[in-house]
Amino acid sequence: MVSTYPESEVTLGRYLFERLHQLKVDTIFGLPGDFNLSLLDKVYEVPDMRWAGNANELNAAYAADGYSRIKGLSCLVTTFGVGELSALNGVGGAYAEHVGLLHVVGVPSISSQAKQLLLHHTLGNGDFTVFHRMSNSISQTTAFLSDISIAPGQIDRCIREAYVHQRPVYVGLPANMVDLKVPSSLLETPIDLKLKQNDPEAQEVVETVSKLVSQATNPIILVDACALRHNCKEEVKQLVDATNFQVFTTPMGKSGISESHPRLGGVYVGTMSSPQVKKAVENADLILSVGSLLSDFNTGSFSYSYKTKNVVEFHSDYMKIRQATFPGVQMKEALQQLIKRVSSYINPSYIPTRVPKRKQPLKAPSEAPLTQEYLWSKVSGWFREGDIIVTETGTSAFGIIQSHFPSNTIGISQVLWGSIGFTVGATVGAAMAAQEIDPSRRVILFVGDGSLQLTVQEISTLCKWDCNNTYLYVLNNDGYTIERLIHGKSASYNDIQPWNHLSLLRLFNAKKYQNVRVSTAGELDSLFSDKKFASPDRIRMIEVMLSRLDAPANLVAQAKLSERVNLEN
Amino acid sequence: MVSTYPESEVTLGRYLFERLHQLKVDTIFGLPGDFNLSLLDKVYEVPDMRWAGNANELNAAYAADGYSRIKGLSCLVTTFGVGELSALNGVGGAYAEHVGLLHVVGVPSISSQAKQLLLHHTLGNGDFTVFHRMSNSISQTTAFLSDISIAPGQIDRCIREAYVHQRPVYVGLPANMVDLKVPSSLLETPIDLKLKQNDPEAQEVVETVSKLVSQATNPIILVDACALRHNCKEEVKQLVDATNFQVFTTPMGKSGISESHPRLGGVYVGTMSSPQVKKAVENADLILSVGSLLSDFNTGSFSYSYKTKNVVEFHSDYMKIRQATFPGVQMKEALQQLIKRVSSYINPSYIPTRVPKRKQPLKAPSEAPLTQEYLWSKVSGWFREGDIIVTETGTSAFGIIQSHFPSNTIGISQVLWGSIGFTVGATVGAAMAAQEIDPSRRVILFVGDGSLQLTVQEISTLCKWDCNNTYLYVLNNDGYTIERLIHGKSASYNDIQPWNHLSLLRLFNAKKYQNVRVSTAGELDSLFSDKKFASPDRIRMIEVMLSRLDAPANLVAQAKLSERVNLEN
Repeated sequence: MVSTYPESEVTLGRYLFERLHQLKVDTIFGLPGDFNLSLLDKVYEVPDMRWAGNANELNAAYAADGYSRIKGLSCLVTTFGVGELSALNGVGGAYAEHVGLLHVVGVPSISSQAKQLLLHHTLGNGDFTVFHRMSNSISQTTAFLSDISIAPGQIDRCIREAYVHQRPVYVGLPANMVDLKVPSSLLETPIDLKLKQNDPEAQEVVETVSKLVSQATNPIILVDACALRHNCKEEVKQLVDATNFQVFTTPMGKSGISESHPRLGGVYVGTMSSPQVKKAVENADLILSVGSLLSDFNTGSFSYSYKTKNVVEFHSDYMKIRQATFPGVQMKEALQQLIKRVSSYINPSYIPTRVPKRKQPLKAPSEAPLTQEYLWSKVSGWFREGDIIVTETGTSAFGIIQSHFPSNTIGISQVLWGSIGFTVGATVGAAMAAQEIDPSRRVILFVGDGSLQLTVQEISTLCKWDCNNTYLYVLNNDGYTIERLIHGKSASYNDIQPWNHLSLLRLFNAKKYQNVRVSTAGELDSLFSDKKFASPDRIRMIEVMLSRLDAPANLVAQAKLSERVNLEN
Repeated sequence: MVSTYPESEVTLGRYLFERLHQLKVDTIFGLPGDFNLSLLDKVYEVPDMRWAGNANELNAAYAADGYSRIKGLSCLVTTFGVGELSALNGVGGAYAEHVGLLHVVGVPSISSQAKQLLLHHTLGNGDFTVFHRMSNSISQTTAFLSDISIAPGQIDRCIREAYVHQRPVYVGLPANMVDLKVPSSLLETPIDLKLKQNDPEAQEVVETVSKLVSQATNPIILVDACALRHNCKEEVKQLVDATNFQVFTTPMGKSGISESHPRLGGVYVGTMSSPQVKKAVENADLILSVGSLLSDFNTGSFSYSYKTKNVVEFHSDYMKIRQATFPGVQMKEALQQLIKRVSSYINPSYIPTRVPKRKQPLKAPSEAPLTQEYLWSKVSGWFREGDIIVTETGTSAFGIIQSHFPSNTIGISQVLWGSIGFTVGATVGAAMAAQEIDPSRRVILFVGDGSLQLTVQEISTLCKWDCNNTYLYVLNNDGYTIERLIHGKSASYNDIQPWNHLSLLRLFNAKKYQNVRVSTAGELDSLFSDKKFASPDRIRMIEVMLSRLDAPANLVAQAKLSERVNLEN
């Protein structure tokens, strides 16, 4: 992807975007602000690069997160103070959930900083470093550029760290530096994105794992969030194929292995797993856990209950075997080494367990009011290969666990950070990424009416870019159902102002769109069997009418556990 | 306002809200989240207190800011991590602009923190103090409660600091502490909100000022932001009455003295003032400057050009006379002392200058397309006593400077922090405050179509609470006009997706509403002469059609200066 740049010098602003373009980051998210305007000019100089122009900065951060989950890296541009602070919750989410995101902030010129001018967008106290400090805690690394001679190297380092560690990185870029020149020959050496090699001693760790494999008669593989985020899906598949072990995912690991894989046993969520899955995982005598992230909602409130101590954890920057931690042993390389040798270690008395059959979809009379159980049971039949499925914290993120994803599906959810409204922005990022990689892929959002209110204006960005590959399912249950289940079932703070959802696409001037409302089982069934509806040729808003306290069974169980944890002394 | 509480003990959650109720803070802004739900239960236990239930946390922070600018203090409740970070830009604005705001964050229980549980809404690293640290830099003080025996005192201290310093204060309240009991007798002693008295030496400072007054033959008074924020409007009026000096305001000081006052000379903005105002201020031989905040947009990019060194600055926590600073001398008390004695010091050769007449409103043919100059010229005639006028950063904040406010008008604008979208939230807070103090007062918003997109969903909160006293003027100039004037006149990053603004009130289910679009001078004139329209009995959306590069002359001048500052090396 590195091409010779025609001029001998290039502006620093363009340098930044050329570097991103080399990594196929071709949509830049954010909003204009007067400390970043000259930087935005440079986006337009790079062929095939586009400026998304989001509706607000938090939404832009969510969009960058969604884009990165598809393409491995993204870039968010905001303006000093007001813009960057608005984005922090979105950046914090990318930190918690391991998403590679370069946050570039247009800051006042070096001379304004030196003179401590009382500029707008400052706190009025002459402190120009305060926002940089605030971002520090939620960044893998940061750079506040001031010296043009080292600035390109700093940009390269920041991009590398964001990509390799899959975390946000902060870059402060003073307005006056955008047009300073740097040698364009620097662009000819690609940024080194390779992981550093594991130490030779890591080989011993792999030996130890192999030995555990050779002793196990009932082993399983458990796939979690970081297998997806740190780009180990291929290794997971190869490991399952090489061992023939049964494989499970966590909620955050869903889509970490193709759900058409014959060895996939289901989703493990501690006590909230199906009885078959619970038994299979907890009775295993060896668990190879890939990329685990043991948060409350990902583990049924910490209700894992393995009967074995033989747990091997593969992480992006360490491994753990039983109680021993091996810092610096990165899972990608370790998995590759394990895959090469594992088949010759498999215990001869290992008999591949039978994978349970998938549940049949529910049946209901056509006039029956729609329920969450019915929706999540039927939706699997409507999904198709290549879909990108985005589910909001709340009933959707829990409901989706029981659905089946066709092959090559990508699931996006924010199970750890759990910021409501995230998915509307993430859908924009995912849809714009899909336009770049394969416009025939559908991007399907499931969001509650409560969460939608936080970030609704980002639908306007979908309309602006004609993201006709999107389906927006709004689950209308008249308020914050997940909160009602946790606490305050009839409290009015869980109510919201009711909206006329089906007027949103018209409000935002979508060019091609369809509005549908479904209230009964029969209406849902006929929608899901409508071939025209299945074809992604316009933006679609589907309002799904549900009753106030209706929720997937696993959410009801989780909510009870959550309230207990919250109120414990 | 302190009444005896019927039970001998009260929960800590209710204690907090009873304290706020004693200070007439009767609307609490924010969103529910599972670490604050049990706290929100307590809002409903306090008679006449309401939970606003905003559409997102940034908007809620803006609303709390707007409410506080009317009532002197406000309270925002968010949830740990996701909720509080979303609010930071709004809280930062309150810090920069001196607005008293208590930010209460519902955090995980003490035991979850101690066990470092991998809870949702955390970064996944067991660090429960990181968000508290991030808020530190934009708070006057903070408290992270953990010991019930001192918690009421910490709450009292935080409320006092927020009020006295007119800054945000952060309180972390663990979910498990909400229901712990404290003695209700504590509620019988009101929180001490008095400023501490100035040291006796401050008397000398007042002497020195009096002497300067006695020597001046051409003195003026200049009123700025902090005179409003630190509750010195009455002192300003008395000072002007006692001296008969001509008085000017800055953009941020507008409405710091009644604009019907016969001694008001106009708005001083450095080189961007009217020639008469510029001459009067800059040729003064003594300037009594009250609450100055010399930010770029408040000073015409630092273009003050006094011909005198005799400048006396009154600030909330210090005074400055010529080059000498007097820390700890608070303006409120110093002004009161000065007012008592000043009339006997006035120089006999001081002849009160004539205040220039106000400009006549512009005239235009009825079919003439509407312009900013015409709008801002005519709008003064439509304003009425008691109006609360909220103007967004951009064309509105500049345009409003040339308008005339009737008596008892309150102006709200965010000239220093300048976060676009602020005013939509601030309007909600102001409208809810108006419902409490005098429902006949109108709340009038001027916002550009670009800024509106960032926070549009907050209009839903106006609809939910039937804020029928609101007028929402949307200045539709097809994008970010202020940014176009600064940089990128025809750059597409300053474009926005066009919306059908007149469908917003229907989308949000307003009960009583009116939609109007005005495109010509004649249409505006007939709207402004329509008596029915002037009566605040429904929510009104007025779409004002303007051309893309049309802007008030003072903004055009400011934009040129701003770009220069941004790009300077």
